[in-house]
Amino acid sequence: MANAGVQSIQITRFARGELEARGDALAVEEPLEIRISGDPLLVTMRTPGHDHELTAGLLLAEGLIHSAADLSGMAHCGRPGEEGYGNVLEVTLAPGVAIDEARFEARRGTTLNAACGVCGRRSIEDLTRDLPPLAPTTRFRASLLSELTERLREQQPNFDRTGGLHAAGIAAHEGAYRVVREDIGRHNATDKAIGRLLLDSALPASSSVLVLSGRASFEIVAKAWRAGITAIASVSAPSSLAVALAARANLLLLGFARERAFNVYAGVERLDTSRV
Amino acid sequence: MANAGVQSIQITRFARGELEARGDALAVEEPLEIRISGDPLLVTMRTPGHDHELTAGLLLAEGLIHSAADLSGMAHCGRPGEEGYGNVLEVTLAPGVAIDEARFEARRGTTLNAACGVCGRRSIEDLTRDLPPLAPTTRFRASLLSELTERLREQQPNFDRTGGLHAAGIAAHEGAYRVVREDIGRHNATDKAIGRLLLDSALPASSSVLVLSGRASFEIVAKAWRAGITAIASVSAPSSLAVALAARANLLLLGFARERAFNVYAGVERLDTSRV
Repeated sequence: MANAGVQSIQITRFARGELEARGDALAVEEPLEIRISGDPLLVTMRTPGHDHELTAGLLLAEGLIHSAADLSGMAHCGRPGEEGYGNVLEVTLAPGVAIDEARFEARRGTTLNAACGVCGRRSIEDLTRDLPPLAPTTRFRASLLSELTERLREQQPNFDRTGGLHAAGIAAHEGAYRVVREDIGRHNATDKAIGRLLLDSALPASSSVLVLSGRASFEIVAKAWRAGITAIASVSAPSSLAVALAARANLLLLGFARERAFNVYAGVERLDTSRV
Repeated sequence: MANAGVQSIQITRFARGELEARGDALAVEEPLEIRISGDPLLVTMRTPGHDHELTAGLLLAEGLIHSAADLSGMAHCGRPGEEGYGNVLEVTLAPGVAIDEARFEARRGTTLNAACGVCGRRSIEDLTRDLPPLAPTTRFRASLLSELTERLREQQPNFDRTGGLHAAGIAAHEGAYRVVREDIGRHNATDKAIGRLLLDSALPASSSVLVLSGRASFEIVAKAWRAGITAIASVSAPSSLAVALAARANLLLLGFARERAFNVYAGVERLDTSRV
């Protein structure tokens, strides 16, 4: 049986100045829409598998249910084999169990509810309509990209003290950092860095690289795209949906960018491997 | 000037079978409420500092503004020095700039809006009212705790292939894992593990340890508390608010649990260092 949590992919590895094609595996990221008696409650990005457990745990954490007895049933909607099947879970509460309406309302409508459809494919298309096209011209020197994550760490004053802060930096095409920001959250650090450029009226940040101390997920790629950034270099792994979105955006996406090497997950044609 | 992003703390380090008091530094986590012309838009947990940039970047990412010209002003509300000052940012839009009401509504009311007040202190008190008290009796063998994160990794089938999946496991008091789940998101992996126990009618999971491959934030500690879990062991760093909440919950909180050693951030009285 195929493992729904992992997707195989062909990537390009850059190391010691050379490119090499190889197989790799991605953590799958897809939206799950949770409905209660037909009403959409929320959409969360998750790795498929154990959706019943995820939903039960999430409803508990939100204070909406308190025990298994509060649940009457859970089932995926739609027909197996259909596009997006498995990404909508319908919850039926036990007779007499009332949802706290105030809590329910508070949880309705997250970002993703607005941005995403039911399945990965649809969500990417929805996003694309709204997002500006990226100019396809900029190319990035591989040797320069390979140094960016190391230099990000050097610019993280608080990480060494706490070990608990993510960093996001935006570097110009020639490799100089325009801004580096730290935060407990990857998304916040990214918002701060992009926000600096917005406040400086320096967007779109085309010919720039967003450099991340953490993983690249769907939301991170969407943030970069909206800011007109044309490359992302992450110290860690990208998700399946991050790779799909980057490919659609014509955005160069690097992962495991460490020790002067990296994996290219999308936009390899933007890479310049000449040694100038 | 004090660095608002870092908080100094006294902790207990366990290594080679011995406890030792030492100083440490935490990444600060506090809620920021963003208001537009007086209307609350959202509350996000963040590390204080560069709040204007965070807000500008977030509004851009949400598609609510498009350039610096859409903003007329931003200012923290309240009086400097007051409890919680700096955690509410008021945004004024430029004349003639209209917010997309549908997007605005979609972003209103997140989990944190419901759970948190304006400042860290208030949010913890709000949560406490709603959360069940933890029984203060269970003690955990330090030697056993020190092995749990290593054994979590062994139970992560997909991490080795992707390098991009978080794990959350729940181990019994004697060290046996009751459940281990993987997901691209730390919160999802935690919800899945706790959800499994809920579906098995095995909550509250008192005398259990939640073991995490990632960081322990405010939300993770709140999830554990709600499930009645009495200890958390994380491979990485906790945030300031995670430590404060764990202390309030009477919950044993370990960080940097690697290579048979760990830091104790809260609940050290729950630790049993005898070598049986």
